[in-house]
Amino acid sequence: MRYGYFDTENKEYVIERPDTPVPWMNYLHNDEYCALISNNGGGYSFHLSAKDKRILRYRLNNVPMDRPGRYIYIRDEQTKDYWAATWQPVLKDLSEYKTETRHGFGYTKVTSTYKDIKSETLYVVPVNDNLELWHTKITNNTSSEKTLTLFSYAELCLFAAQNDMINFQYTYNIARVYEKDNTIHHTTMIESAGHYAFFSADQKFASFDCDREAFMGLYHSESNPKAVEAGKCSGSEANGGNPVAATSISMILKPGESKTVTYILGVAPSIAAGAKLIAEYTKPGMVDQVMKDLKEHWSEKLDSLQVNTPDKDMNLCLNQWNAYQVHTTFSMSRGPSIYEGGIGRGMGFRDSNQDVLSVIHSVPKRVKKLITDLAGNMFKDGTAYHQFFRLTGEGDGKGYSDDPLWIILSTTAYVKETGDMKFLKEKVKWADGGSATMYDHLKAPLDYTYKNVGQHKIPCMGFADWNDTLQINGPKPGESVWVAQFLVKCARDFAELAETLGKTADAKKYRKMADDMSKRTNKICWDGKWYAMAFDGWGTMLGSKKQTDGKVYLNTQTWAVISGVADDKRGPECMDAVKEYLDSKYGVALMYPGFKHYSPRLGGVATFPPGLKENGGIFSHANPWAVIAETMLGRADIAMKYYQQLLPTTKDKIQDIHKAEPYIYAQAIASKEHRDFGFARNSWLTGAATWNYVAATQYILGIKPTYSGLQINPCIPKDWDKYEVTRKFRGSEYHIVVKNPGHVSKGVASITVNGKKVKGNVIPTQKSKTNEVEVVLG
Amino acid sequence: MRYGYFDTENKEYVIERPDTPVPWMNYLHNDEYCALISNNGGGYSFHLSAKDKRILRYRLNNVPMDRPGRYIYIRDEQTKDYWAATWQPVLKDLSEYKTETRHGFGYTKVTSTYKDIKSETLYVVPVNDNLELWHTKITNNTSSEKTLTLFSYAELCLFAAQNDMINFQYTYNIARVYEKDNTIHHTTMIESAGHYAFFSADQKFASFDCDREAFMGLYHSESNPKAVEAGKCSGSEANGGNPVAATSISMILKPGESKTVTYILGVAPSIAAGAKLIAEYTKPGMVDQVMKDLKEHWSEKLDSLQVNTPDKDMNLCLNQWNAYQVHTTFSMSRGPSIYEGGIGRGMGFRDSNQDVLSVIHSVPKRVKKLITDLAGNMFKDGTAYHQFFRLTGEGDGKGYSDDPLWIILSTTAYVKETGDMKFLKEKVKWADGGSATMYDHLKAPLDYTYKNVGQHKIPCMGFADWNDTLQINGPKPGESVWVAQFLVKCARDFAELAETLGKTADAKKYRKMADDMSKRTNKICWDGKWYAMAFDGWGTMLGSKKQTDGKVYLNTQTWAVISGVADDKRGPECMDAVKEYLDSKYGVALMYPGFKHYSPRLGGVATFPPGLKENGGIFSHANPWAVIAETMLGRADIAMKYYQQLLPTTKDKIQDIHKAEPYIYAQAIASKEHRDFGFARNSWLTGAATWNYVAATQYILGIKPTYSGLQINPCIPKDWDKYEVTRKFRGSEYHIVVKNPGHVSKGVASITVNGKKVKGNVIPTQKSKTNEVEVVLG
Repeated sequence: MRYGYFDTENKEYVIERPDTPVPWMNYLHNDEYCALISNNGGGYSFHLSAKDKRILRYRLNNVPMDRPGRYIYIRDEQTKDYWAATWQPVLKDLSEYKTETRHGFGYTKVTSTYKDIKSETLYVVPVNDNLELWHTKITNNTSSEKTLTLFSYAELCLFAAQNDMINFQYTYNIARVYEKDNTIHHTTMIESAGHYAFFSADQKFASFDCDREAFMGLYHSESNPKAVEAGKCSGSEANGGNPVAATSISMILKPGESKTVTYILGVAPSIAAGAKLIAEYTKPGMVDQVMKDLKEHWSEKLDSLQVNTPDKDMNLCLNQWNAYQVHTTFSMSRGPSIYEGGIGRGMGFRDSNQDVLSVIHSVPKRVKKLITDLAGNMFKDGTAYHQFFRLTGEGDGKGYSDDPLWIILSTTAYVKETGDMKFLKEKVKWADGGSATMYDHLKAPLDYTYKNVGQHKIPCMGFADWNDTLQINGPKPGESVWVAQFLVKCARDFAELAETLGKTADAKKYRKMADDMSKRTNKICWDGKWYAMAFDGWGTMLGSKKQTDGKVYLNTQTWAVISGVADDKRGPECMDAVKEYLDSKYGVALMYPGFKHYSPRLGGVATFPPGLKENGGIFSHANPWAVIAETMLGRADIAMKYYQQLLPTTKDKIQDIHKAEPYIYAQAIASKEHRDFGFARNSWLTGAATWNYVAATQYILGIKPTYSGLQINPCIPKDWDKYEVTRKFRGSEYHIVVKNPGHVSKGVASITVNGKKVKGNVIPTQKSKTNEVEVVLG
Repeated sequence: MRYGYFDTENKEYVIERPDTPVPWMNYLHNDEYCALISNNGGGYSFHLSAKDKRILRYRLNNVPMDRPGRYIYIRDEQTKDYWAATWQPVLKDLSEYKTETRHGFGYTKVTSTYKDIKSETLYVVPVNDNLELWHTKITNNTSSEKTLTLFSYAELCLFAAQNDMINFQYTYNIARVYEKDNTIHHTTMIESAGHYAFFSADQKFASFDCDREAFMGLYHSESNPKAVEAGKCSGSEANGGNPVAATSISMILKPGESKTVTYILGVAPSIAAGAKLIAEYTKPGMVDQVMKDLKEHWSEKLDSLQVNTPDKDMNLCLNQWNAYQVHTTFSMSRGPSIYEGGIGRGMGFRDSNQDVLSVIHSVPKRVKKLITDLAGNMFKDGTAYHQFFRLTGEGDGKGYSDDPLWIILSTTAYVKETGDMKFLKEKVKWADGGSATMYDHLKAPLDYTYKNVGQHKIPCMGFADWNDTLQINGPKPGESVWVAQFLVKCARDFAELAETLGKTADAKKYRKMADDMSKRTNKICWDGKWYAMAFDGWGTMLGSKKQTDGKVYLNTQTWAVISGVADDKRGPECMDAVKEYLDSKYGVALMYPGFKHYSPRLGGVATFPPGLKENGGIFSHANPWAVIAETMLGRADIAMKYYQQLLPTTKDKIQDIHKAEPYIYAQAIASKEHRDFGFARNSWLTGAATWNYVAATQYILGIKPTYSGLQINPCIPKDWDKYEVTRKFRGSEYHIVVKNPGHVSKGVASITVNGKKVKGNVIPTQKSKTNEVEVVLG
């Protein structure tokens, strides 16, 4: 069963069957406005905050699924038959209704034909304004004149989304929506929502409704609205109740004739400002201009790193969809999706510090801003809020043991990529008052974590580490072996930074911290063939062969290698355990075996059935760490297996098993312990996007920024003859050709930059705008 | 347009048209288990906590509305046509599908006929066990043998409800549902949910589904499940995903033949305990027994006060539906409804202290328990939590200025009704540690409120008073004139209690407190023709003729009279202002005029359009206070007008305008400032239930418990010749006949108890089990 395919040429994913197993989503967004849109037009929109300033309502976990959406109904006035420009919500029989959806970068196009009336609808969010356009072209391919009525439908809710989902005694009483000057005006008295949204079009509305019930009718649904059945809207306002923007437009089409309508939905600081946007965006030719700007916008972002390897799937993902996805996770963190609902989660401290890793070369200024905002949510004692909200800047949640350390990874990566050493001297606020340099912001979490240890002198687990739902407890604090390893990595990275800055005392101190913790981990946490995961508060070792469930965990093996904790013997040994116990054809499981029974000693992890999420599921985010570890061990074949088996293009071959969108990574895949082995959930907003991108570009293709230049250290399949990477680095472009005449996996024999040989494997920063680099492996 | 009518004889409300403007709900509940059910079977179930232990899922604000529910599909195997025992969810054309729903006390019956197949379905929650029964009888009224398949459908979610509505990345991964021994078992690892729910029947399932998608099919809905279309379920389990209990049963019916099926859904501490319940409740004859027990249960509750007056509507409401509603609000407070969603609100401190007022004569022990629980959520300083949650006992929310005082009203009412003076000596815990007598719990809020005053020495508003959304602010604390009056009332009631207990120093102290505050209020807060509502933090008087919006507020007029703050001149004067500015044919508005514009100086109130909720809407809860005030002024005609215009039986005459259930009170009615004048929202869980009951029985009919006995002080329409009240009081029954030969409104000429004249208007407590009382007005 296949639903779609990649159109590499047009950089689109084409969905030919609309009845996808779950909504297949796209994110149309600029810096402030975002429209989530499914292959059938479903999804919500928001401005700045999916939590506090929702614009379009969407019912998650709805029956039928994926409702409501941005609907354009088409009614044939001769036959009274009606359908929609998307398959939803009328769901006409697919033998009569032909449709194709193309998700592109920042836009979605739906082409449908029913009884020889064709509609081509483009949904797009322009690069610079807080609005979305629905541009539709209707063509009469019949041999007779057609009188059609087009109905637009959007369910508005310029409210706080959580109230909208759970506090109906309130939200049923706050809507104020009315029509004036061919525009539906949605004002709200909720200050945080910014007061105003609008819906209009480049043509005169024949009728409108602002009240859902008036448009829909009692016990009707989006599938059969009363107004569409009647051929016109009733002119309702909404004062309380459920606000909608429903309109009708009359259209007469001669045989062969086409006509277009452009609808516009957006937010503005005032009605006058909204009117200006409406006037601007309904001008003839404006849609073409918007699409031109959009394509330039995305080309600029994506052209900053392009690859050409013998692996076409890798090329497609790195050049197109994985690159597109990392920009989405960078902007959205983990909040607005069809799984998260955009309410509880803001910009995650842990999440966003990772999300930046893949986009620094592309949008360094925005990365710097985000890292600064994250650092501002840290406390003087070296702890950090778990997340913050963009609209208000407010942070919340504490107690995750890994959170604060992530700032070191993001900041050092940013400085290596940009060379912006001055950033470390910039003053950044603390969440609990006062400010300090970025350098001090990096130091604080190291000191905190090193000091905050349990009975084995391993860092305390706190509420949880990266493995969110392993919420161990007991009479004494639990301890996280993974945080110990992560601390080693961060302390070493920081020591390298300190060294580079000439702060040798700090370099020495943190190198010693890393060595101490490394030794301790090797002494206490090695379980014979792999590293344990944690000690609970009773002192029991978790992730040990002595346990019935939860014997082997992925993260303490991968990070043992990544951090350098594992020596040359233990490194391959623990990664062999990963291969033996955790690997499968659909990905590497996070742990094995999953817990069969709930235990308050474990917390959340055992609320999941075995094989799902943290309870032994395939957690995509953690898979590329296995790729990185294997490249560090020089085992290219295993690294490539792990990388390839998770690739969207691979999932595209098992659409009926994977079920989620096959063009992007999903967070969670059911492991072989679960009946639905291979089935994916929580697509789009996952750290898998950034880390797979980093693993592929920096560890497989091996082109990695360092303080002194671009390091070349590939680990590739031996049968590759050659590959090329073009990338921006510190304002210049590098065209790097890597040749592999000896068919090795690893090892650089020579590097030539602009015709000159360089020593070692680092390309020093060049002054030329474009640079030719030839690398020969051997 | 009429949808239903009262069946007084059978104590049922009969809904003949299923397409009601909103779901018309019933609450089937015992002390722990509750099933909300609409006229079409929709609604959710929960055990103890609608927030933490939801059993059936319901999608609020759904399109189409009122989904899902407790559905029994009926499929004709010859024609493949299918419908349901309720109109929802198949929504067959009403020209072919005939249906009638009867909401009774603790049960709901739905009778439907489609193509001569009749189904009679009873939904009932037994008095003592945590389960619900769906008992259906199918009759073949055609002339040929019918092979039918019955499908049951319930969407399970033994989860915390808020997660289920907003945190899908979690709840999509926790379900565990499977079939074994003809029972669908829903286990959960969420501890607070108690781990286990079951669904079974008294007949063998031919097929089953535990996974919603397997039963429903992609892009299908409850209206057209794939399994029903196919004639059988697929045998799915749920491990993650959306759990359902879907089953099929085969049934062959000869012409004229009937067969029954009893389905059972419930929770139990273990699978074995569940099996025991299933065995017990699927025994032949058990449904009849359950109904017999239920009828006895409700008779006992409702017989404790019955009236017979010349006003049939009053009789019907006081004897049946209002009495039924007050028991529901007493049990549910303001949490689980189709408006509140059962998540944010537990047992409200303010709410529950009022809810008890109407049920003390009926369930005194449960009232005492609830008052004790409420008192345990008070702080030593005289403040109180805004609410607490039954499952966990946890309190939350603080800062409402009126909250703590309500404990005085409930406790004195309890003691007056029961004579249980010892209760005041019982030790009750404080929320912040330690304990004190109930007497001290009553004293603390008085002292706190009297001390905690603003610049005019009027009590501070805090976050808000009873008028929740009037959240005034400013450089200094805002002040509530209403809380000043409420304090006067509570201090006087407490002084009377102290006097009765012989604590004369306290009596003196609190009488003086009342007098002081009363004088202050009259001096500072009188606006010429009415009492102001508040002073904001800038010192501005709100509820004043000087304001453009929000000139006149209801509560400071009614409570001026109720508290005795208003003298003989100001009392009628301020209540005349109520009549002039706030009264309308559909009820008395809370304020006038509504705010047209949002202002941060006012907070929440102005987020509503004018005429809705606190922004000038008709707030039913506050209406009976106007009834009480008018009876205290002796103005029976106005009192009766206010009482009658809000009566459910009155709303029953305007079903198409009122829209909410016409058999019970709704919280909020749109006032004449709103386009939908008369339209009601937030039905069922409202203080209007308790206060209308109190106003009618204690102030119009004028039979009011006092420390020394039952006081008789009616205020009735002059044209009444006579009325009777039979009520329990301190273990005895009183049959009170009030005669009005002189056709007066007020004034007791004589009282004869068991043949003996008594002095004054108080019937002293009698020792006889039954007592005949004759009252003559004059």
